Amino acid sequence: MQTIQIGLLGLGNVGTGVVQILQQQAVLIAQRLGTELALKKVATRTPDRPREVTLQAGQLSGDVMDVLRDPEIGIVIELIGGYEPARTYILEALQQGKHVVTANKAVLAQHGQELFEAARHHGVDIGFEASVGGGIPIIRTIKEAFVANRFVTIASIINGTTNYILSRMSDQGLRFEEALKEAQDLGFAEADPSFDVDGIDAAQKISLLASLAYGTWVRQEDVYTEGITKVTQLDIAYARELGYCVKLLALAKRDGDRLGVRVHPALVAAEAELASVQGSYNAVSVTGDMVGRNLLIGRGAGAFPTGSAVVGDVVDVARNILRSSSGRVPPQGYETLYENELSLQDIDDITCKYYLRFQVLDQPGVLSAIAGILGEQGISIETVIQKGRSADQSDTVSVVMMTHEAKEQAVRRALEAIQTLPRVQGETMRIRVEDSGAD
Amino acid sequence: MQTIQIGLLGLGNVGTGVVQILQQQAVLIAQRLGTELALKKVATRTPDRPREVTLQAGQLSGDVMDVLRDPEIGIVIELIGGYEPARTYILEALQQGKHVVTANKAVLAQHGQELFEAARHHGVDIGFEASVGGGIPIIRTIKEAFVANRFVTIASIINGTTNYILSRMSDQGLRFEEALKEAQDLGFAEADPSFDVDGIDAAQKISLLASLAYGTWVRQEDVYTEGITKVTQLDIAYARELGYCVKLLALAKRDGDRLGVRVHPALVAAEAELASVQGSYNAVSVTGDMVGRNLLIGRGAGAFPTGSAVVGDVVDVARNILRSSSGRVPPQGYETLYENELSLQDIDDITCKYYLRFQVLDQPGVLSAIAGILGEQGISIETVIQKGRSADQSDTVSVVMMTHEAKEQAVRRALEAIQTLPRVQGETMRIRVEDSGAD
Repeated sequence: MQTIQIGLLGLGNVGTGVVQILQQQAVLIAQRLGTELALKKVATRTPDRPREVTLQAGQLSGDVMDVLRDPEIGIVIELIGGYEPARTYILEALQQGKHVVTANKAVLAQHGQELFEAARHHGVDIGFEASVGGGIPIIRTIKEAFVANRFVTIASIINGTTNYILSRMSDQGLRFEEALKEAQDLGFAEADPSFDVDGIDAAQKISLLASLAYGTWVRQEDVYTEGITKVTQLDIAYARELGYCVKLLALAKRDGDRLGVRVHPALVAAEAELASVQGSYNAVSVTGDMVGRNLLIGRGAGAFPTGSAVVGDVVDVARNILRSSSGRVPPQGYETLYENELSLQDIDDITCKYYLRFQVLDQPGVLSAIAGILGEQGISIETVIQKGRSADQSDTVSVVMMTHEAKEQAVRRALEAIQTLPRVQGETMRIRVEDSGAD
Repeated sequence: MQTIQIGLLGLGNVGTGVVQILQQQAVLIAQRLGTELALKKVATRTPDRPREVTLQAGQLSGDVMDVLRDPEIGIVIELIGGYEPARTYILEALQQGKHVVTANKAVLAQHGQELFEAARHHGVDIGFEASVGGGIPIIRTIKEAFVANRFVTIASIINGTTNYILSRMSDQGLRFEEALKEAQDLGFAEADPSFDVDGIDAAQKISLLASLAYGTWVRQEDVYTEGITKVTQLDIAYARELGYCVKLLALAKRDGDRLGVRVHPALVAAEAELASVQGSYNAVSVTGDMVGRNLLIGRGAGAFPTGSAVVGDVVDVARNILRSSSGRVPPQGYETLYENELSLQDIDDITCKYYLRFQVLDQPGVLSAIAGILGEQGISIETVIQKGRSADQSDTVSVVMMTHEAKEQAVRRALEAIQTLPRVQGETMRIRVEDSGAD
């Protein structure tokens, strides 16, 4: 039986999980694949540190070139993360004729086009199922299972940290800062949480999914991105009163020949399936013109779920090695021309319902002034909630409005004008309402 | 550009959908695959009947041999359904060196082993994603995405007809017969509904999923099967009162070296995600030891969702043809020996909570007699609901009990003894409680 030799770059949380999976499931994988996978070499910056996993003498190295230049190694797993030196190492591996499996959404969102072209040029595979949604098989679902579909919408919860924080704010009434602190204490959030809470991680992931689904390159900077730091308990409570919960959604929507890709907090109907996705779970709703809507839910992070996706890709690549069929599925899922040249939609051009919360001085006429400005912009109001003064906010009250469908540009202009009203205090909260998760 | 020629057997609902997909998405599929797919010949028993799709002269035939013996046809799509002649045609196609794509769970549940061995023997592929869960990519998720996992549990709603009926009984208060009639009028249920409502369709599908996941052949007759015909509105109402809804579940569970595979109505916690799967939707919850629990939800039937899965498989096979990599993923997902020889678990050996509804004469002592017998069998009771006499059942009342975890054998023996009590009237309703969909 032929053995396929694997090299691993990076022995952090996911790297350790991958080693454990390769060790524990070796017999099972060999039965399914028909060949043994052997982890020949693991490169880490700290080869002398004590580990949770047992590696044999010589298996660990402090020099990545021991992996990248080993002629016996056929598949390199990159689990270093970040842009550099990950990009350089992946390119080096591809140039050496090695197949690459990675969980690194950052490097793919930034350098995917270069890396995919390098893989095709060198006739090797690049697998990246683990880069989005942890163990959820979303990449192969878009590229392979739904190959007969034009994609209509992707609506996803793909950042576990923010979903955990919003879930805790909603269920336990925690403030953002309290929920963030809890997530940090549990290891769900980084010491510098901006990558997650500002929506950057989700933007990288949805840019990748959109690129695969729509056959056009969407870069991270093409993604309209808002994080969750401005979402307050007050908004979550009002949303609940209106029958919604607040989620950080990553969306890609085709609208004629334009493609809108965006990450922002959104009101999701409480009875929608996406609303029930709690804590660190991820969910991706994919709508194809033939298959209709499919929803995939699973653990979006963690050593074993993500490791499962990494090893799934390794087996896929190994099957190509055994059959000499590398490049069988092209990295982006398109063999020749892309589907078309979709142009990117400006956020000003989207249309949806809006949740608006104004903080106003409790004086006569303020509601009519706000409603008047909204009316001038053609925005009609579905629901208004105005309550009496609360004890701790003695001079302002909240006025919450749910609009009918309106254009973003009109809402933006209206809010700019409303902001100049003397009786409107502080910044107005604006959260989009998203119903594409529903039928 | 090389063209791959396809033949189609059967032009019913799904067959028509497949033709439409191949026609409408031809350019898109060619861009993704790098090669054109051409539907050369369609065989149907009624070639002269008017069709929703436009086929060219010579594309339609009344003779299956025009497809099976055409040397140019590389892929045969079998959409006839049923055991025979589907089995014979598939075997003939495989013997002719043609790859086969089928949506036929019946023939696979009955003759899968023979057909899979024939495909391997002749060095061709057999794709069957469309046979379970319509457009949901569950087959490739089990065989490929989760290849690094030992499977713990599959808990699924994979019969849309019964899910529709139970949803309507629950939401609209319809009786079983009324909901069935409605499903028949809408085309969701056959004139002879026994295949669906008796759980046979779900048993065929779960036998197939279990065979792939656990690497051991599970035949339809190995699946403990109960349908939904005995479920009443009364049970649905009591279940709701207890915080549950009633679903027809198809389950495969590993318990040490034993594998339990079963189809029966079950109480699912109202807040569980499976409970929110409504109408004709299907859902499959798969738990792997590494990836944890994943849930896939989508349309389980219909020409386009099922057609999407069929064409997805056709593209998969075409990629193998282009790379000469047929057999790259073996039909059952195992290249050599099966994982192990799991033995099948008898239904008597399962352990779960039980919902029990007794119809009793409203006389003193009956509750203590029932509780006494349950106690003798070591079954303890979590909740009892006993209400006053209803107007229309003047001489009996319902006594509903939710047990703690108990062994099926003990429950069966207790119910046999309780049935002999003079004050117990009619058959006792017993519904298992399933919580493997939860975390």
